[in-house]
Amino acid sequence: MRYSIGVDVGGMSIKVGIVDENGVIIAQNRVKTAKTATQCINNLVDQINQLLDENNVSISEVNGIGIGCPGAVSPEIGLVNFLPNLGWENVELVKELKKYFNLEIKIANDASVAVLAEARYGVAREYNSCLMFTLGTGVGGGMVIDKKLYDGGYGRGGELGHITLDLNGEPCTCGRRGCVETYVSATALIKQTKNAMLLDKTTKMWDFVGGDIEKVDGRTAFECSKMGDKTATAVVDKYVYYLSESILSFLNVFRPDAFILGGGISLQGDYLTDKVTAYCEKSSYGYKDAPKTKIVTAKLGNDAGIIGAACLI
Amino acid sequence: MRYSIGVDVGGMSIKVGIVDENGVIIAQNRVKTAKTATQCINNLVDQINQLLDENNVSISEVNGIGIGCPGAVSPEIGLVNFLPNLGWENVELVKELKKYFNLEIKIANDASVAVLAEARYGVAREYNSCLMFTLGTGVGGGMVIDKKLYDGGYGRGGELGHITLDLNGEPCTCGRRGCVETYVSATALIKQTKNAMLLDKTTKMWDFVGGDIEKVDGRTAFECSKMGDKTATAVVDKYVYYLSESILSFLNVFRPDAFILGGGISLQGDYLTDKVTAYCEKSSYGYKDAPKTKIVTAKLGNDAGIIGAACLI
Repeated sequence: MRYSIGVDVGGMSIKVGIVDENGVIIAQNRVKTAKTATQCINNLVDQINQLLDENNVSISEVNGIGIGCPGAVSPEIGLVNFLPNLGWENVELVKELKKYFNLEIKIANDASVAVLAEARYGVAREYNSCLMFTLGTGVGGGMVIDKKLYDGGYGRGGELGHITLDLNGEPCTCGRRGCVETYVSATALIKQTKNAMLLDKTTKMWDFVGGDIEKVDGRTAFECSKMGDKTATAVVDKYVYYLSESILSFLNVFRPDAFILGGGISLQGDYLTDKVTAYCEKSSYGYKDAPKTKIVTAKLGNDAGIIGAACLI
Repeated sequence: MRYSIGVDVGGMSIKVGIVDENGVIIAQNRVKTAKTATQCINNLVDQINQLLDENNVSISEVNGIGIGCPGAVSPEIGLVNFLPNLGWENVELVKELKKYFNLEIKIANDASVAVLAEARYGVAREYNSCLMFTLGTGVGGGMVIDKKLYDGGYGRGGELGHITLDLNGEPCTCGRRGCVETYVSATALIKQTKNAMLLDKTTKMWDFVGGDIEKVDGRTAFECSKMGDKTATAVVDKYVYYLSESILSFLNVFRPDAFILGGGISLQGDYLTDKVTAYCEKSSYGYKDAPKTKIVTAKLGNDAGIIGAACLI
């Protein structure tokens, strides 16, 4: 058996896993994210060597190291352009690691890595092409076309959360207005939930959060809707509308076999995808016989970062 | 020298060309579009044979026949799903033509064919990847990635005119609201021009169309803006804003080397692309060092249909 190393770089911790040829993580460890890029890289070298030692895997059994990074990267030249949550800017990550490991080393954006994992070993493994939204603080985007990762020119595309949904909408972190991200991220859903609560003091959602609006999260509206609360249902319906319209734009361009929803909100599972599917099937462009896209939720959860990074090799 | 046959199917006429290995049309003819698919196919067979005869090209010198169709097609199975302007529905075009020609025969959507022509032999031939809007009655879309045509799953994607620009916008022909097409097609620009004229009886645009608002076309606002008319300039500025915002959504997903504008409005050339470029460079996502996309106008004009169809072979 041969192995690849998958590295999942996050703002809180950096996770390393040894992944076998079947996409199974045979061992992993985790280290708190250090303050500087140099410290992180030093830690990462130790972390990888330690994990190999502890599991009696020799470096000669390893095909390479893949790394998923939360931000803008230039895979072709191995450069990390900018990781907002870690403060990294223009870090030559591949070059630095090559000093320690005589292996193939590749980097990609973390949302690209996640869709690759789902396409190879997760919910979309039977499909030829799939797109993915990671519905979190922002909206990450990933694309797999003909079984291969597609991340746009120079690996700098794939920003699926930054197509317009409403030209006159609220300002987006990217500088434009009304991007998909401002409507369908967990952050947006929380805001939509809070706004609805402030307008309805009788909704069950107040009880659900113990009267503290700061306790609202991505589940609040969904769980209260399931209990029959009308205001919560209205929030969910509106969110499904935003999400479905966002997805439809991509279906018209890509007609993927599957559209994957990841991130915390995707834990709603069928409850969410049934609604989105119904909306999309009603509205999909391309005349009555347009190919159907399966709307599904991610399956690999937090492991997608390590598995997908290993898939880069 | 070997040749390919390129066929450009249109609502008014069907054009056939013999295209050499350098993308040059060495001869072409044109026949009025017949009323039924069967008549069109019979005409097309005669049209191809006649063109070959007249130019002393033997069928043995021909690699194949490529056909661009104005509507939904399924390239993998050679099926024309629906051509609204010709009334074709579920026509097995490739199978029918195979009865007459023992050659490779391929079909694609006409907007896909146009971008392929520009990528191989036109304005984008130096680029690796490009997207294209054909700004006409509607908005056609085409994508070339890594020098190859990409038209989405089952060849049924590529509807770049049908991503949302304003969720609350006007109804689109596709059944949704506020698609890019409802803002940046020639039809949309004409409507925007007329609306501005109705609100300003003193604009030069009235003189430009001889007082007859039905004479407004895609040039009216542009030409009067060049003459310094303020209302016309406001129409152009708004149109540039809509077009640029539409393009930006695609840049964030694809980061193509070039974005091509085709169709009548693209005849404005640099006057249009300079404005769109300035807007996009100001707003493009991806941090300060995002790769730049060149905004250009199509170069092959009406020949793109025949040349691009031949490129399918």
